[in-house]
Amino acid sequence: MKTTNKLKIFNDPIYGFITIPNTQIYDLIEHKYFQRLRRISQMGMSYLVYPGAHHTRFHHALGCMHLMKKAVEALRFKQVEISDEEEMGLLTAILLHDIGHGPFSHAMEHSIVNGVSHERISLLFMEALNKEFDGTLFLAIQIFKGQYHRKFMNQLVSGQLDLDRTDYLKRDSFYTGVAEGNINSERIISMFNVIDDELVIEEKGIYSVEKFLVARRLMYWQAYLHKTSLAAEQILIRILKRAKELVEKGVKLQASSALSYFLQNEIDLKGFDNKVLQTFARLDDYDIISAMKEWQFCDDYVLSNLCQMILDRDLLKIKLKKKPISLKKVEKLKEAFMNSEGIDEDEAAYFIFTGAIENQAYNLDRQNINILSKSGKIIDVAKASDQLNLKALSKPVTKYYLCFPKS
Amino acid sequence: MKTTNKLKIFNDPIYGFITIPNTQIYDLIEHKYFQRLRRISQMGMSYLVYPGAHHTRFHHALGCMHLMKKAVEALRFKQVEISDEEEMGLLTAILLHDIGHGPFSHAMEHSIVNGVSHERISLLFMEALNKEFDGTLFLAIQIFKGQYHRKFMNQLVSGQLDLDRTDYLKRDSFYTGVAEGNINSERIISMFNVIDDELVIEEKGIYSVEKFLVARRLMYWQAYLHKTSLAAEQILIRILKRAKELVEKGVKLQASSALSYFLQNEIDLKGFDNKVLQTFARLDDYDIISAMKEWQFCDDYVLSNLCQMILDRDLLKIKLKKKPISLKKVEKLKEAFMNSEGIDEDEAAYFIFTGAIENQAYNLDRQNINILSKSGKIIDVAKASDQLNLKALSKPVTKYYLCFPKS
Amino acid sequence: MKTTNKLKIFNDPIYGFITIPNTQIYDLIEHKYFQRLRRISQMGMSYLVYPGAHHTRFHHALGCMHLMKKAVEALRFKQVEISDEEEMGLLTAILLHDIGHGPFSHAMEHSIVNGVSHERISLLFMEALNKEFDGTLFLAIQIFKGQYHRKFMNQLVSGQLDLDRTDYLKRDSFYTGVAEGNINSERIISMFNVIDDELVIEEKGIYSVEKFLVARRLMYWQAYLHKTSLAAEQILIRILKRAKELVEKGVKLQASSALSYFLQNEIDLKGFDNKVLQTFARLDDYDIISAMKEWQFCDDYVLSNLCQMILDRDLLKIKLKKKPISLKKVEKLKEAFMNSEGIDEDEAAYFIFTGAIENQAYNLDRQNINILSKSGKIIDVAKASDQLNLKALSKPVTKYYLCFPKS
Amino acid sequence: MKTTNKLKIFNDPIYGFITIPNTQIYDLIEHKYFQRLRRISQMGMSYLVYPGAHHTRFHHALGCMHLMKKAVEALRFKQVEISDEEEMGLLTAILLHDIGHGPFSHAMEHSIVNGVSHERISLLFMEALNKEFDGTLFLAIQIFKGQYHRKFMNQLVSGQLDLDRTDYLKRDSFYTGVAEGNINSERIISMFNVIDDELVIEEKGIYSVEKFLVARRLMYWQAYLHKTSLAAEQILIRILKRAKELVEKGVKLQASSALSYFLQNEIDLKGFDNKVLQTFARLDDYDIISAMKEWQFCDDYVLSNLCQMILDRDLLKIKLKKKPISLKKVEKLKEAFMNSEGIDEDEAAYFIFTGAIENQAYNLDRQNINILSKSGKIIDVAKASDQLNLKALSKPVTKYYLCFPKS
Repeated sequence: MKTTNKLKIFNDPIYGFITIPNTQIYDLIEHKYFQRLRRISQMGMSYLVYPGAHHTRFHHALGCMHLMKKAVEALRFKQVEISDEEEMGLLTAILLHDIGHGPFSHAMEHSIVNGVSHERISLLFMEALNKEFDGTLFLAIQIFKGQYHRKFMNQLVSGQLDLDRTDYLKRDSFYTGVAEGNINSERIISMFNVIDDELVIEEKGIYSVEKFLVARRLMYWQAYLHKTSLAAEQILIRILKRAKELVEKGVKLQASSALSYFLQNEIDLKGFDNKVLQTFARLDDYDIISAMKEWQFCDDYVLSNLCQMILDRDLLKIKLKKKPISLKKVEKLKEAFMNSEGIDEDEAAYFIFTGAIENQAYNLDRQNINILSKSGKIIDVAKASDQLNLKALSKPVTKYYLCFPKS
Repeated sequence: MKTTNKLKIFNDPIYGFITIPNTQIYDLIEHKYFQRLRRISQMGMSYLVYPGAHHTRFHHALGCMHLMKKAVEALRFKQVEISDEEEMGLLTAILLHDIGHGPFSHAMEHSIVNGVSHERISLLFMEALNKEFDGTLFLAIQIFKGQYHRKFMNQLVSGQLDLDRTDYLKRDSFYTGVAEGNINSERIISMFNVIDDELVIEEKGIYSVEKFLVARRLMYWQAYLHKTSLAAEQILIRILKRAKELVEKGVKLQASSALSYFLQNEIDLKGFDNKVLQTFARLDDYDIISAMKEWQFCDDYVLSNLCQMILDRDLLKIKLKKKPISLKKVEKLKEAFMNSEGIDEDEAAYFIFTGAIENQAYNLDRQNINILSKSGKIIDVAKASDQLNLKALSKPVTKYYLCFPKS
Repeated sequence: MKTTNKLKIFNDPIYGFITIPNTQIYDLIEHKYFQRLRRISQMGMSYLVYPGAHHTRFHHALGCMHLMKKAVEALRFKQVEISDEEEMGLLTAILLHDIGHGPFSHAMEHSIVNGVSHERISLLFMEALNKEFDGTLFLAIQIFKGQYHRKFMNQLVSGQLDLDRTDYLKRDSFYTGVAEGNINSERIISMFNVIDDELVIEEKGIYSVEKFLVARRLMYWQAYLHKTSLAAEQILIRILKRAKELVEKGVKLQASSALSYFLQNEIDLKGFDNKVLQTFARLDDYDIISAMKEWQFCDDYVLSNLCQMILDRDLLKIKLKKKPISLKKVEKLKEAFMNSEGIDEDEAAYFIFTGAIENQAYNLDRQNINILSKSGKIIDVAKASDQLNLKALSKPVTKYYLCFPKS
Repeated sequence: MKTTNKLKIFNDPIYGFITIPNTQIYDLIEHKYFQRLRRISQMGMSYLVYPGAHHTRFHHALGCMHLMKKAVEALRFKQVEISDEEEMGLLTAILLHDIGHGPFSHAMEHSIVNGVSHERISLLFMEALNKEFDGTLFLAIQIFKGQYHRKFMNQLVSGQLDLDRTDYLKRDSFYTGVAEGNINSERIISMFNVIDDELVIEEKGIYSVEKFLVARRLMYWQAYLHKTSLAAEQILIRILKRAKELVEKGVKLQASSALSYFLQNEIDLKGFDNKVLQTFARLDDYDIISAMKEWQFCDDYVLSNLCQMILDRDLLKIKLKKKPISLKKVEKLKEAFMNSEGIDEDEAAYFIFTGAIENQAYNLDRQNINILSKSGKIIDVAKASDQLNLKALSKPVTKYYLCFPKS
């Protein structure tokens, strides 16, 4: 354990300075599990659309912790009692809430660690750290799992208006330059209150909540689900899937030792033991991108071409539609491509495929955003809003995409 | 007429620099009718809530002109033909669109120049300037009045997504610090297009339009109709009304010569001849505030007390309700106040009163915001939006207020 | 005294929110002496160059208080002991440090309240408030006067790197749009420390201090001493001087009662009794501008012309030179003007005159900015800087101006 | 060659939108040589101090091009003639000026491509692209090399106040959050002019130039030469040196094929033929970081430990001094470390070493920054500045560092 001059302040272009509140938080940040987040991009392939979007999960996690500190201050100012131990639990839970993210997490979950969510892996990391830190993360884990009796604490970490979302919207908007996604985190936090251990928003904050929901929806369609990032992500999923197939067939593919492990082994939640976790802890963006850089020169038509597409940003074309894509159209495209390239249908399916994306700005079935009216009543935001039809915002929107090669 | 070194650039904290495009625009800006806007606050009494909100109509008008120049560039880039003469008409029309505003315009319209809207007075000023500038403002006036055959030009000056709103939302958000009201004017303008001489927004801009509407609604409730500004404005209306009453009764009240004229004479649209216009051109915030500063020491209980309220920011209390206020309640309050202060009912009515405010984020009956879909079809934004229920946003919201003295 | 719902938060576009720390500060802000600062512009005539520069001394004073709170927090974090009473003294002293400013203060000091500085008047206001608030401002006054034994407290209020300057540079830069004047107040404050009750800046903050000095110098030449504002201010001084002359001669000039008092009476420091203070407390920008609006139509050639110049922003021409202007040139200009306008020399002198302006970025003779080196030694910043020659910055720079009418 | 929907706009959080001016620029940006810059960080190891500093050379190059377009507009507005061909040369030259940067360029130049500067490699890339683009880059290359007869064009690309510096100061300040490094690029460009084909700054821009120089100096000491980044960079140099040594000795080290090539071959300028260039074009940050990720587990004490330091951000300690470090001290530290770790002196020298860093804010011997005075004279900024002693800023400042392991 290091004992010397503990860094106390981080520069952050968004909040100015982020102060590390105490030694244990400092030590968690210094831990290699956490330092690894410096090498995991927050927005995956979005930098192909927004060249500024290279910020990391490391920075986001620090930002969340900073907002949590502000939230605790704001709530205490309103006479909500939060003990020092609870504060520490909150700070730790939000700091570590994303520690289980792998590189290009969504792509990974659909290819390599199929069926194991990043939340689950976050929990595995927290438990490992809890052992290392002599059980002091117990309360953080309780809060993270939603098992602590004061429900608002979990809501601050993972509700529909939690500090995770509050930071990432602001941060992603800042780094992409999509100014409309910006939200006023300071004002939102200043409207927090707690009634019967449930998080509520004071009534005068209702326009800020609406603005938050609209900004989030906008960021989904304009950034997170932007069709170019979507195409890139779908290609990446297929790269990893193809690589795995080839490895299973005995083809040798250059890759980092950590990535090789996951290509060679089928891991599910049951098999995710400590050894797997150690290997997972070594995986980051660099493993994936470096592998693609080698694979772009390999002999496999599918793998090499898909890798080049990402690296030279010469992606598949993509079309978004409001209705499902007709199978016939897909078949025709595939056939033409098989003929022109001399490949079989399985191979062509890597270049021509369809899918659906969905977004729901406000989820009525999940933990609600509750508004505290001046009279003291608590109302779901969807009902409290006088004009903006939040019920409409709670209807999921689905779009359908078709990817195919440039001709 | 001045001939020397014509200032070419204004500093603007929002857009960086605003460049004056040509000599005639320069001369219009230098004209005393326009310089007068330096002494008219954009947000009236809002500085009592937002201490930074001291920006002027002068600055806003420059900002609008700047955005108009950007819009013309953007449209020409998309092959929309706009002649130099038309550009000049657009720039002039937007520069002068608010020149008819008096000090604390909304209060004035309800007291002193009852029944004459600021748009009407803007037109009178434009016509006067047109004479002075040898008829060169003819096209600008056509555009302003909506009589020019290319309809999009009027829509850029006064539609539901015009450059007036685009600037004032951004500017008011900036100076008040209500960050949620900020909009991305650059992106909105880049989405403008023209089909059959009608302004349309390209489909990919739909989220920006939604964001614009939500931001505008938020600014209404959080700033323009903030209950404290509302109380101040209602007090100001009553100050001017009372002053007029007293003057009619022969009481001598110190006031600037311009303000005195309007207190002594009943002006309606018919009587608004050139002499009246000249006098109106001398009225600004300084006439009103200075008058209040003298009147706070006058003998009239009503007038002196109301003036002190504004000057010391010690306003009437105000309550906002979703339902009309009961008359009974008002009567009871009045009675108590009459007894405690020894005044009559007419006087008490200056301190205890009710009213209604209304806002409609999107008006289905007015010039629509039209979306140009990728297929080339034109759809009203209220229908084009996939999720945000803009029909809901087009329902007017009414709130009721009650003002009464602090006890 | 008001007892009802005390406003607790101000919106500030610069710091986000400014929180009122306690009831007494709240009551001071609500006092009419302080509310009057809402009607006194921070940058005087600068809005004629920078149309956004309409922010007030009210807003600046709140900003200073906000920074003082941050500074107290930062120092306590470094184990500098500051009692609650001392904190209250600091907050009060900085809140009220500018309360003695009159409208267009520099012009006033050179015409109407000749010889009485605004600092002196601030002290008079503080003493009056101290009586009203039962002696609770005693410590604040001690700190303000530099008589409290802990010297750093006065340095925070009025040193060469105090919170007054820290706020006004940031604020003036923000509202003018002169981005280069912006400074990082948060970082500067985080570098504060106290050794032997003297304020020091930690060594790693030296570049920020240099940047602060350069930014301040830039703001002087680019904003505070901008030649157009300078011309306007000099005209204003002459307007007030002329008005006083005319009043002394018995001419009747319309003016507010407060302004009339100062035109009719010669006030010096001795005569500045409580009655004068009460009258002074009623003076603000509105008295001055409104008077000019009436005087522009008066019979006196000098007064009416000078007033029109300001109101229509059609100012005298001004030239800045590095050397004093030759008297001969001035005489020639005067003669020509006397002939063309048919006026006498005294009158011409109101339109053709010279003067000097001076700025010194860092004053070696005043309270120094001390740098605390890592080894613990304290060094004057002018010596500690490795490269930027701060000795050069401490050399006063003088420029000479000539004003004359447009021909 | 791609023919489909050419992307025309990039989002940039700094300038809003960056528009691609024409098809050839578009094709250059799409070229894999340029796309590779997406994988090369602008600030190298600085993200270890400033977690937001992950922006890339790709983004910076786009920003430079954007500013060049603004500069061309500003100069043409002042009647400086610039032909369309020259404009294209300027845009291309600035777009490609940094294309020769390798990953962690400064570290590379001191280890792997010893003696070949990135400017030289930029030229090689430009020449290769010139062939591919049928000689259309000829003028850009002339400008880049300073061989075009209109000297200001080269000054815009690589002078002491060029658009490279103008963008990187703004951008690095933005992404690090070191607000003091921000400069007003718009104002600086608006002050550009050309006299006798030399770039000059108009006199009224002198404060902005001073501010620029001070900001640049601040960024050097606070960011580029920050002691933690410095330590990391020095470690990286030693990692690459050590890896090369080991490879030369026949040790097998896992690395990408491109990196392996440079570890196995000694390349100097002469040997930098097209094949080498092709290999170099495949090198980026991912090769270096991925290699370290494998090497941290290798058997060599030196290499594995140094790699872990970077990856876990558990760096050597570093001290900065104004005087050279005493050799004796270094020897003593080495001896102690040799004893405690059981390693030899050569190995210890990887962990304990000294060096010097130097910065010069303004270089009197290089292309000067010339000020155009109102009288038409041209003066070096170091003489034109009335107060800020720029001669002082032109004195190089040297600092000495000592690196050593944590005990």
